[in-house]
Amino acid sequence: MKEINVGLIGWGTVGTGVARILLNQDKYIREHERLSIRLCKIADLDITTPRGIDIDKNILTTDVNDVINNPEIDIVVELIGGLKPASDFIFSALKAGKHVVTANKAVLAAHGKNLFKTAKENKVLIKFEASVGGCIPIINSLLEGMAANNISAIYGIVNGTCNYILTQMTQRGIDFSEALKEAQKKGYAEAKPDYDIKGIDAANKIVILTSLAYETEINLDDIYIEGVTDITQHDIQYAREFGYQIKLLAIAKLLEGNKIQVRVHPTMLPEDTMLANVDGVFNAIYVLGNAAGATMFYGRGAGQMPAASAVVGDIVEIAKCKIAGTDPQLLPLPTLDNTRYSLKPMDECETRYYIRLQALDKPGVLAKVSGILGDHNISIASVIQKERGVEKSVPIVMMTHEAVEGNVREALQEISNLSVITEKTMMIRVESMEGDEEKLAIV
Amino acid sequence: MKEINVGLIGWGTVGTGVARILLNQDKYIREHERLSIRLCKIADLDITTPRGIDIDKNILTTDVNDVINNPEIDIVVELIGGLKPASDFIFSALKAGKHVVTANKAVLAAHGKNLFKTAKENKVLIKFEASVGGCIPIINSLLEGMAANNISAIYGIVNGTCNYILTQMTQRGIDFSEALKEAQKKGYAEAKPDYDIKGIDAANKIVILTSLAYETEINLDDIYIEGVTDITQHDIQYAREFGYQIKLLAIAKLLEGNKIQVRVHPTMLPEDTMLANVDGVFNAIYVLGNAAGATMFYGRGAGQMPAASAVVGDIVEIAKCKIAGTDPQLLPLPTLDNTRYSLKPMDECETRYYIRLQALDKPGVLAKVSGILGDHNISIASVIQKERGVEKSVPIVMMTHEAVEGNVREALQEISNLSVITEKTMMIRVESMEGDEEKLAIV
Repeated sequence: MKEINVGLIGWGTVGTGVARILLNQDKYIREHERLSIRLCKIADLDITTPRGIDIDKNILTTDVNDVINNPEIDIVVELIGGLKPASDFIFSALKAGKHVVTANKAVLAAHGKNLFKTAKENKVLIKFEASVGGCIPIINSLLEGMAANNISAIYGIVNGTCNYILTQMTQRGIDFSEALKEAQKKGYAEAKPDYDIKGIDAANKIVILTSLAYETEINLDDIYIEGVTDITQHDIQYAREFGYQIKLLAIAKLLEGNKIQVRVHPTMLPEDTMLANVDGVFNAIYVLGNAAGATMFYGRGAGQMPAASAVVGDIVEIAKCKIAGTDPQLLPLPTLDNTRYSLKPMDECETRYYIRLQALDKPGVLAKVSGILGDHNISIASVIQKERGVEKSVPIVMMTHEAVEGNVREALQEISNLSVITEKTMMIRVESMEGDEEKLAIV
Repeated sequence: MKEINVGLIGWGTVGTGVARILLNQDKYIREHERLSIRLCKIADLDITTPRGIDIDKNILTTDVNDVINNPEIDIVVELIGGLKPASDFIFSALKAGKHVVTANKAVLAAHGKNLFKTAKENKVLIKFEASVGGCIPIINSLLEGMAANNISAIYGIVNGTCNYILTQMTQRGIDFSEALKEAQKKGYAEAKPDYDIKGIDAANKIVILTSLAYETEINLDDIYIEGVTDITQHDIQYAREFGYQIKLLAIAKLLEGNKIQVRVHPTMLPEDTMLANVDGVFNAIYVLGNAAGATMFYGRGAGQMPAASAVVGDIVEIAKCKIAGTDPQLLPLPTLDNTRYSLKPMDECETRYYIRLQALDKPGVLAKVSGILGDHNISIASVIQKERGVEKSVPIVMMTHEAVEGNVREALQEISNLSVITEKTMMIRVESMEGDEEKLAIV
């Protein structure tokens, strides 16, 4: 039986999961894949804290070079996360002729093009299934199964923290801050949660998916990113009244004129769509291809074992290629040097909008507001205005027809200057998704 | 640019779709995959009926040997369907040293073991993503991404015809026969619909998935198959009252003692599960792995372009391997020679049951029925017995706790012999799916 030697950089949660699978599933992998994967080095700054698994102490090291420059090692697995020094380790490993498996979304999103180029130059493979959607095989599917398709849209629920928070707000009527605290207590959110709740994590992931789907280098700084921190229980309730659920979506769309639009923001989705039913920490990625139509992939987007499962899947794939004598240089890796597509600015985005205003309960307010919207070519599809209560100010909630983002922003700016407006206005984009499949050109 | 030559056997719906993608997406595939796929032969008994695409007449032939024994051809694509003569063509192609792509579930289910063996002996690849779930990449995922997982269960909605019929019955309150007629009118059901509505199609597909997940040869004749023909509007309504939806599920489970259970039957699913929300002609496959947890794949399970998309995905994969010099003989193909697992007989199946009796409205009927159930170790979880109407006989609807299939059958046989029972008794199995993930052993 052929043996493949693996070195691990980063012995944290996922690293421990990978080690656990490689140890405990060794017999299974030998039987099913007819190959043996040997974990022969683990590098971490902390090699003394017990991880609850039985690792031979001789394979532990605090020097990353014991992995990267180890002539025995075939595959380097990078699991320390974050941009630096992870990117240095990955580039060094590729240049040392090692295949690389990583779960590092930040490095992939920032250096994808250069990584693929370096891998190709050094005749090695780089795989990164765990970087998006945990155990969901979305990377492989985009690179392989959808080869026959022009991808017309990707809609992803790719951040479990945000989805958990929004699900709790929706199902139990609690506020954002309470839901966040609960997520932190359960280990679904970090003590410093900004990376997740402000949408940065989701943005990194959609950059990776978009760059693969369109073979185009996408810059994180060029895409629109909005997190879930401003969502209130009011919005959750009104969404329900309109028949919608609020999800943090990462969206990429191919539009006319070879433009692609990439954006991350809270989104109202019709409650009967598949994505609207993805709850809790689960992730799902909905892909529209011109031949395949609508496809959706659902699963655990994070967590020790789901991420480790994807990492080991990548290791097995590389091991198979190595054993079968595949020349990695000859594999058509994505190059991300496509110049055909360009990013469409967010101001030109066209969608429907939910707008919630808080205004003094005076005659003529609705007329004023709708007048300003009309001046900006925004027409109202429906309005909820509740009866006057004891409060002096009342909410006015509107759903618009399709409108242009830039116009909506300008109109909302003007509206917010009205003296009758008493609070910050909320705006949430709406994706109907209906008819998306029908709109696709048949190949 | 490397060129790969493809020969097509079967110029029907999917074959035409494949030809269309290869022609229309040629530029796209060249750009994205950096390879050129040339369709150089199409064999069909009918090469004169127009298919609505622009095919060079010189590549058409009525002689299948022009494809199989054509030295120019690298990949033979079999799309005629059905067991014979398709299996002969596939075996001949493999023996002639051609890689094979097929969508043929019948051949895969019947000859999987021998096909993989023949491919390996002849140093070629066989791929069959389109055989299950159309464009859903479930085959690749089981063979690749889930490599690190022991699969503990597969639940599949894998027949679009049945799912369309059940969805229409549920959403519009129409009867089975009306829903079937409508499906036929829309092209979702054949004029002779038995293969689909009796569960044979779904059974073939779960045989394929099970054999891959457990590397074990499974015989179609050994598994329990029940179609959707007996489902009535009553059952749909009662299911809803209990909080369930009825779906035709193809199920494979790994049980204690290395037993696997494979079965196809209408199933009541809690209405808030992801699978219960898969409507219309869509398919979905829910996989539980011990590391990945729950994963679900959703998409169009049939239709010209979705199936063609999967076929072309396979062609591209083989082309990449060929270009990269991969030795197919060295790829660890499944062998299906595992002797570790054996099939658990259906009589030993343990699940919950929905039972609908029609009985004379006399005192003591419920006592009699529940007495018989109790004698067979079946305990009742809830009962719906509606008030007496004008009818002499009334429905008694029960949901049991977990019980053993053999006991349930015996009890229902005894009950049906009671003189108070006026109609055939209906029994539908219930899968709660809740806690499935928690029950899994962590690796």
